Amino acid sequence: MAEYMTETDERSPAVPHSGTAGEPRETTGTATGPLDGQEALAQLERTRTLVYPELRAAVESLPGAMRRIGLYHFGWQHADGTPASGNPGKAIRPALVLAAAAALGGPAARAAAVRAAAAVELVHNFTLLHDDVMDRDTTRRHRPTAWTVFGDTDAILAGDALQALALRLLAEDPHPASVPAAARLAACVVELCEGQHADTDLEQRAPDAVTLDEVLAMAEAKTGALLGCACALGALYAGAGAEEVAALDGFGRQAGLAFQLIDDVIGIWGDPRHTGKPVGADLAARKKSLPVVAALTSGTPGASELAALYGKPYLAEEAEAGEIARTALAVERAGGRDWAQAEAADRMARAMQELARAVPDPEAAGGLLALAEFVTRRSS
Amino acid sequence: MAEYMTETDERSPAVPHSGTAGEPRETTGTATGPLDGQEALAQLERTRTLVYPELRAAVESLPGAMRRIGLYHFGWQHADGTPASGNPGKAIRPALVLAAAAALGGPAARAAAVRAAAAVELVHNFTLLHDDVMDRDTTRRHRPTAWTVFGDTDAILAGDALQALALRLLAEDPHPASVPAAARLAACVVELCEGQHADTDLEQRAPDAVTLDEVLAMAEAKTGALLGCACALGALYAGAGAEEVAALDGFGRQAGLAFQLIDDVIGIWGDPRHTGKPVGADLAARKKSLPVVAALTSGTPGASELAALYGKPYLAEEAEAGEIARTALAVERAGGRDWAQAEAADRMARAMQELARAVPDPEAAGGLLALAEFVTRRSS
Repeated sequence: MAEYMTETDERSPAVPHSGTAGEPRETTGTATGPLDGQEALAQLERTRTLVYPELRAAVESLPGAMRRIGLYHFGWQHADGTPASGNPGKAIRPALVLAAAAALGGPAARAAAVRAAAAVELVHNFTLLHDDVMDRDTTRRHRPTAWTVFGDTDAILAGDALQALALRLLAEDPHPASVPAAARLAACVVELCEGQHADTDLEQRAPDAVTLDEVLAMAEAKTGALLGCACALGALYAGAGAEEVAALDGFGRQAGLAFQLIDDVIGIWGDPRHTGKPVGADLAARKKSLPVVAALTSGTPGASELAALYGKPYLAEEAEAGEIARTALAVERAGGRDWAQAEAADRMARAMQELARAVPDPEAAGGLLALAEFVTRRSS
Repeated sequence: MAEYMTETDERSPAVPHSGTAGEPRETTGTATGPLDGQEALAQLERTRTLVYPELRAAVESLPGAMRRIGLYHFGWQHADGTPASGNPGKAIRPALVLAAAAALGGPAARAAAVRAAAAVELVHNFTLLHDDVMDRDTTRRHRPTAWTVFGDTDAILAGDALQALALRLLAEDPHPASVPAAARLAACVVELCEGQHADTDLEQRAPDAVTLDEVLAMAEAKTGALLGCACALGALYAGAGAEEVAALDGFGRQAGLAFQLIDDVIGIWGDPRHTGKPVGADLAARKKSLPVVAALTSGTPGASELAALYGKPYLAEEAEAGEIARTALAVERAGGRDWAQAEAADRMARAMQELARAVPDPEAAGGLLALAEFVTRRSS
């Protein structure tokens, strides 16, 4: 199972991209622009300062075991209940909420949206708790996942409680945007559920029974939807109209898809500016990532070769480095890598178009742009 | 795992009760009173007519797999997606929402509360989907549980989606009560989660490591909380003040505890007016039900005998009928049966006090009273 925009992901800087029209470097040009990543890092830091106290107070308000598991999951407590330094993640989604609010409503809107930002982060973490149970993932943010420590039942229940807590935060927020924000966040949860269903379903199917459209739709639902929702909630808290809200939702969705495409490329070939060697785990696990499905459905000779390789059982990564390299080469020869990089550039271009539609002033749009650059690793 | 007020429960009519002061037969006296159960059955029927179309439209609005699993769970579709006659349960919780609204706000409030009633039923069914996964229960409403048909992952996801759908219904309801109702329902979900955690935790502990207060608190969180919340939501939709809302919450909680006590008694000794013989499954499974824990903590000679019996491993019910009968006798000799019946009567008395506090007019309170009588099987 891919990590899909989670904070366990330590893969670092940018992947080369194909420089299509609308590519982000050309849409902004401030001297201290976002492209060195410093602005995004500063935004994330500021977001954590603003949002984590609200987030932690919400988790602390839970009763007994739900509180204990929640505090463990966010890294604020060890499994035995003793205090821990805390590592609740980078806070990309709450940063998008605050940046969208600021882009359309200035500092006052950003301040007003802190609770909504916490609600989005609670929803994200509810899905992480459940996904880890379903995917049997044992590590998250460099610590054992909640289900490995507390068992499946309690991890599922803690996830349920975090979803409820998110919607409770909004229901108790007197801001006029809180009601449409709650409706939108709840609708997003449904989409996330369908996305996780699609992911597990696609992974169980034969390699030749999966279409590229299906994998793109899955990635949009599983990864793009919550990024889009985060931006949309910020817009709502800025008092934006339906069109701006929809455009910012589209911005987040397309940036999320660009992220996923690039993440999948790194999952196969590694980060050339960082490790310089293939990573391979996704291929060993026969993961139907976007470049792989693009290759499988390309109709090229490489596609048949790849299909034959993917028909073999799961590989032990260490034992089969040669086989993994052959598989990566087959994906590349069938055009999977080129397609994914071009598609990522295209999605970023669409994201920029949506952003320009919602926030025509490049200065005001800078914060959101910096975050989009950051999540798609175009800046470190 | 006990069934806790679920609609799988086919055990039928009343258990004798001890007739303590405040006992419901004495607090109402209408000629066509609720005690024959006909009024409750009519209310439930009317509730299903009003609420199920809203409920079904909400489930139909889900995408793909979430929709399919939801429709299966509610009995509206077979596993293969073909239409089924539908058996979404008795609708006790939505009936409490509507009855509470009507008691405090008349027919207009009842009509306004239909969406809230559907939201409560969605939350109830979200917990059923998840509890069935956790408890490995294979049958619900005479059909295979969702996880046995669709797998754990999809059953968990469908539960997640139903929770989101419930809170979305409220967020999209323009009624002024919908916001405090959503906050209250979300808080209730957290309590339900903690209750389910406590239940599984208590079942894993040694029989002598469980206190009666712990089991009562678990039953209140797992069973009482949502009945109380249903009544409180109805009160909110009637425009009631905080005191009336709190009193109706207390009414539902106490009635829920009375239900659980009586259900536990029937689980050990069967329904004397119906089967006349012990049921035994709860004892065979070493379930720490309320009468059992009351007996274990009674300090009587029967308590030691029971502790010794409960220290033995799980029994095959058929093979060990004699042993089960001995266990039931030990619970009875240690006072577990008498305590549970007296406690149930006491809880019903408290429920009646709360009801009288919120709805002083006995005529107006009749609908809620009839439902409380019905769920505690004092009328069939």
